[in-house]
Amino acid sequence: MPDSFTPTARSRVRRHPERAHYDRATVYAILDAALLCHVGYVIDGRPYVTPTLFWRDGDRLYWHGSSASRMLRAQAAGIPVCLAVSHIDGLVLARSAFRHSLNYRAVMVFGTAAIVADAAEKERGFNAFVERLYPGRTARLRPILPQEVKATSLIGMAIDEASAKIRAGGPLDLEADYAADCWAGTVPVALRLGAPIPDERAPPRGDPAQELGPLGPGAALDRVLLALARRDG
Amino acid sequence: MPDSFTPTARSRVRRHPERAHYDRATVYAILDAALLCHVGYVIDGRPYVTPTLFWRDGDRLYWHGSSASRMLRAQAAGIPVCLAVSHIDGLVLARSAFRHSLNYRAVMVFGTAAIVADAAEKERGFNAFVERLYPGRTARLRPILPQEVKATSLIGMAIDEASAKIRAGGPLDLEADYAADCWAGTVPVALRLGAPIPDERAPPRGDPAQELGPLGPGAALDRVLLALARRDG
Repeated sequence: MPDSFTPTARSRVRRHPERAHYDRATVYAILDAALLCHVGYVIDGRPYVTPTLFWRDGDRLYWHGSSASRMLRAQAAGIPVCLAVSHIDGLVLARSAFRHSLNYRAVMVFGTAAIVADAAEKERGFNAFVERLYPGRTARLRPILPQEVKATSLIGMAIDEASAKIRAGGPLDLEADYAADCWAGTVPVALRLGAPIPDERAPPRGDPAQELGPLGPGAALDRVLLALARRDG
Repeated sequence: MPDSFTPTARSRVRRHPERAHYDRATVYAILDAALLCHVGYVIDGRPYVTPTLFWRDGDRLYWHGSSASRMLRAQAAGIPVCLAVSHIDGLVLARSAFRHSLNYRAVMVFGTAAIVADAAEKERGFNAFVERLYPGRTARLRPILPQEVKATSLIGMAIDEASAKIRAGGPLDLEADYAADCWAGTVPVALRLGAPIPDERAPPRGDPAQELGPLGPGAALDRVLLALARRDG
């Protein structure tokens, strides 16, 4: 498998091509650091975008049944999908309105999504969703029941094409604007985890600090996702 | 204008309909709390999803030129768009793999997007992008130059249909699973702002605390967005 995706007419980054990356390492790192993706598909010529949890296994992506499921069931060969992942990393304040920006890491993936029919592959997929975020957790849980496997569809897609786009760093102002009487710079933005809240319906057994690793107030989601990255690596 | 959107075949929430909301207040609040949206559109029968900053004005949404721009320029009447916004609010850990979930607020909007051609409306739009996040800031900045207005396209869309979907609260386990030997509950997730980083190319004038309001380490993006909500209200 080549180290980089080959940009095509549909995957090439057109606006700000200097922010584009096509190597697998960059694309996969951005995908793996995300909880949520946005899946785009077409029904009767019209666009739909559904947010969903997802999971990567090599060059394949998986997610739960979405509103595309009905259509997918009718089209065993699969349907074209564009899957997007975005991380907001910072607000960029420039010295002119026009040059304000956002620091971000984004990936756009193209492929053909299809229902995973095999029950064993589905069960592996559902467990992988849990293990992705909570390594070791499925060993503490009862096995998935056959009726649970049947109740939800698993959708899989090979990554045919992909591109990443990254903006980082401070504002880029016009020379004439650097003396402007305003603050300029970046304000970092990140997803953070708060303190675990025990289930209110019934006090849970177990200790979140021991089972989930270092979460706690102010801890970065990065720690969870670093654990994940180690698993994938 | 009615207080609620009327769900149709394309906007009705099918999976977990008990999580659906169609009232404008809920839909607008979720849109207004977001920095980024994912815009879905169709080119040659295939789906594309582009993340972009956006801004709401009444029942209209605006965003910068995207990779749909070329197509939009060729179709002055506009193109069908599905615009999605998602906030991750928490990880939900249940007592079985299958019942793990995510707390979130999401909105799906349908409409017809078109290029805004009028230069004055464009200039108002670009300033509104800045004011949305940094109230009062455009008064400190020089006016937008005519060549800046020309250089980027502004896309606008009336909200034809919309639906919101919200999951909140703890895990919902099977009765038989409540005695399971594992922790169960939720881990809150939120976007947080870090401490402002001054532009490294040239020390900026001005004071971020005074110009941006309460940001600082650990402050919630909510404060910025609350300021925004007050402006919109």
